[in-house]
Amino acid sequence: MELPSTEEIEIDELWRSLLPLGYHAASGGYRRFAWNRADLACRAWFTAQAADRGLAVRTDRNGNQWAWWGADLPGKALAIGSHLDSVPDGGAFDGPLGVVSSFAAVDLLRAAGWAPERPIAIANFADEEGARFGVACAGSRLLTGQLAPERARELTDADGVTMAAAMEAAGRDPDAIGRDDELLDRIGQYVELHIEQGRALVDLDRPVGVATSIWPHGRWRFEFGGEANHAGTTRLEDRRDPMLTYAYTVLAARKKAAAHGALATFGRILVEPNGTNAIPSKVSAWLDGRAPDEATLSALLGELEEAARERAGRDGASLSVVNESLTPIVEFDHVLRDQLAKSLDGAPVLPTGAGHDAGILAARIPTAMLFVRNPTGVSHSPAEHAEIADCRAGVSALARAVSDLAGGSARLGAAW
Amino acid sequence: MELPSTEEIEIDELWRSLLPLGYHAASGGYRRFAWNRADLACRAWFTAQAADRGLAVRTDRNGNQWAWWGADLPGKALAIGSHLDSVPDGGAFDGPLGVVSSFAAVDLLRAAGWAPERPIAIANFADEEGARFGVACAGSRLLTGQLAPERARELTDADGVTMAAAMEAAGRDPDAIGRDDELLDRIGQYVELHIEQGRALVDLDRPVGVATSIWPHGRWRFEFGGEANHAGTTRLEDRRDPMLTYAYTVLAARKKAAAHGALATFGRILVEPNGTNAIPSKVSAWLDGRAPDEATLSALLGELEEAARERAGRDGASLSVVNESLTPIVEFDHVLRDQLAKSLDGAPVLPTGAGHDAGILAARIPTAMLFVRNPTGVSHSPAEHAEIADCRAGVSALARAVSDLAGGSARLGAAW
Repeated sequence: MELPSTEEIEIDELWRSLLPLGYHAASGGYRRFAWNRADLACRAWFTAQAADRGLAVRTDRNGNQWAWWGADLPGKALAIGSHLDSVPDGGAFDGPLGVVSSFAAVDLLRAAGWAPERPIAIANFADEEGARFGVACAGSRLLTGQLAPERARELTDADGVTMAAAMEAAGRDPDAIGRDDELLDRIGQYVELHIEQGRALVDLDRPVGVATSIWPHGRWRFEFGGEANHAGTTRLEDRRDPMLTYAYTVLAARKKAAAHGALATFGRILVEPNGTNAIPSKVSAWLDGRAPDEATLSALLGELEEAARERAGRDGASLSVVNESLTPIVEFDHVLRDQLAKSLDGAPVLPTGAGHDAGILAARIPTAMLFVRNPTGVSHSPAEHAEIADCRAGVSALARAVSDLAGGSARLGAAW
Repeated sequence: MELPSTEEIEIDELWRSLLPLGYHAASGGYRRFAWNRADLACRAWFTAQAADRGLAVRTDRNGNQWAWWGADLPGKALAIGSHLDSVPDGGAFDGPLGVVSSFAAVDLLRAAGWAPERPIAIANFADEEGARFGVACAGSRLLTGQLAPERARELTDADGVTMAAAMEAAGRDPDAIGRDDELLDRIGQYVELHIEQGRALVDLDRPVGVATSIWPHGRWRFEFGGEANHAGTTRLEDRRDPMLTYAYTVLAARKKAAAHGALATFGRILVEPNGTNAIPSKVSAWLDGRAPDEATLSALLGELEEAARERAGRDGASLSVVNESLTPIVEFDHVLRDQLAKSLDGAPVLPTGAGHDAGILAARIPTAMLFVRNPTGVSHSPAEHAEIADCRAGVSALARAVSDLAGGSARLGAAW
């Protein structure tokens, strides 16, 4: 099957209608957080786009939206899509690129006169970023049973509003959330298209790539304890200053991550009492650690904790390290991945360090991801970017994937 | 003149009446901030103690309280005292020890049948810690003209309340604040007794010492700029992480302070966006720097900024350093200092890194300070401490100083 050029379809119009929603002019970024006004506007946009295409929208018990094309066709569905919520002052592409490209891919396939032989579903997963309630991929985790409904209901935002209250205010029934095997049994595969969150495709000079795996990753809280004292009168030798131990640990984390080919980041810190003339009594800092495999991640953490503990001893500080979350490696379905890479003119395959709904669903159904080149490599920031030509390449790739996967086995191999 | 033992006077009772005011049971510290409820209770306590002793209390235009003994005597007054406000969760002694000891010294002198030949004034300076409005020694700075009244009136606390509004709510007239030469002209000397904020007297095995000088000190804001990015997907070599530059600068500050015999402390930090999975876009951190002399302090800052800038270049980060305040060295009056040291059996003389009202007044009148041993060396914390025997030694020393300085020249030399 020959697909028409993406110039034939109205991708620009799709973007124009979505871009103003939740945009914050002062920061230049987006503030679409689960169930807030901007998020609800995005959800209404999703429903309207589906209606324009005659796709029936169903919202599942966990608040994820599904736009169905050929819902009554036999066989399990091919799901595509992503999410529309954002991190605080995030960019325009992380999430929306996958949803916009899904609608555009449907347009492109229809323009080619193509129709599916099994159901297609475009998904908008709820609360992927976890920006409001602190748990990433909440919608897909609830769906697959990886987040307990009773825990989810009690998660609170910065204003003390629970997820249950926020869902209820948005017209959802928080008592209905939880694992949904009936829905999962209807989905045969999930392919998520996403902006690349790095510069691998830039270096490879390719617009589109296929994901191999999501690195194992975790979050550790380092608590450095010392003794509050007067910064102007306490001799250096009398101090128990936990800021010194923290500083040493930040630099050690970077060195050890480089040595292991891993990532380690201290981006969040709370200091008590946080006064200019006060030696801190306590420094709490969160380490985000990721590595190509679990043994490397574990070795990195072990070495870092040992180094931090040794330095704490020299500083007269205490140290406790608590693992707050740990996500094992996600290997995307090998068959699906190889099929996609082959279909897309040998598109490069690459791992990623970021979590995604596709990584959550991978525990239950075969999933795959397509990445679209990001010239800045920047993510979770207004500087995140994709050239329009690469967005179009992404739409073409997704349309090819859909036509390949949902067009019946007869078309496999012959379609391209 | 022979002073009676301090066992003869009721020092315990003085402490017992003051200790409950502004005490915060959960932290074990004090929350007496300028013009708050606890501070007003302390001011009422001061008035009551003066009344019990027949001392007339006058509150000056800037809110400083003065209890006068022999106000009508000829000559300029000898002022003693300190302050009653605290830092957040501060200890019981920083400030109150000087005020309590002043009342106790009056009791001790009266028990000896002594009477002054010139006026004595016990001072309770307003807002010494600056915990609420951010400017330390506000009461004495206003008095001497080192803080402009229009600036003071507009200082705001964390709730947005201005100093003017807070003073007005406490029955003071904020339009009347400002330099008060008439009052200053009535004061001949000021001697402030204070808990030591370090362990020098512990090492010297002496209960009481005399201050030589207050180290020059300043506050610098270091702003490290980088690029917000995803902690899970951004390769180490693509990062511009200002937390690395900050960490390096913290360790460099400590090393350079040790090399210069100075003090340097990073105790306050603000990170943007301060998210666990976000490389920071900006780290703002405040350096508290102090040194024995101004040349050393300047050299320390110069070297530190150079080292931080070099590291910033390696991290792809930017750096700006802003001096927010800088206080020159205060040399206490040499004649007064030597006289006190000699009177007090050759009490040791020592410098301090902390600012005090005595340091502010030193610009206008001869001032001196007495320090009382602090076995923990800890300051601005509930762990700050003085043994009762040392408190009594402080009262005796202060009484001797008063009798020496305000008893007429005939008694000098003969009194001890």
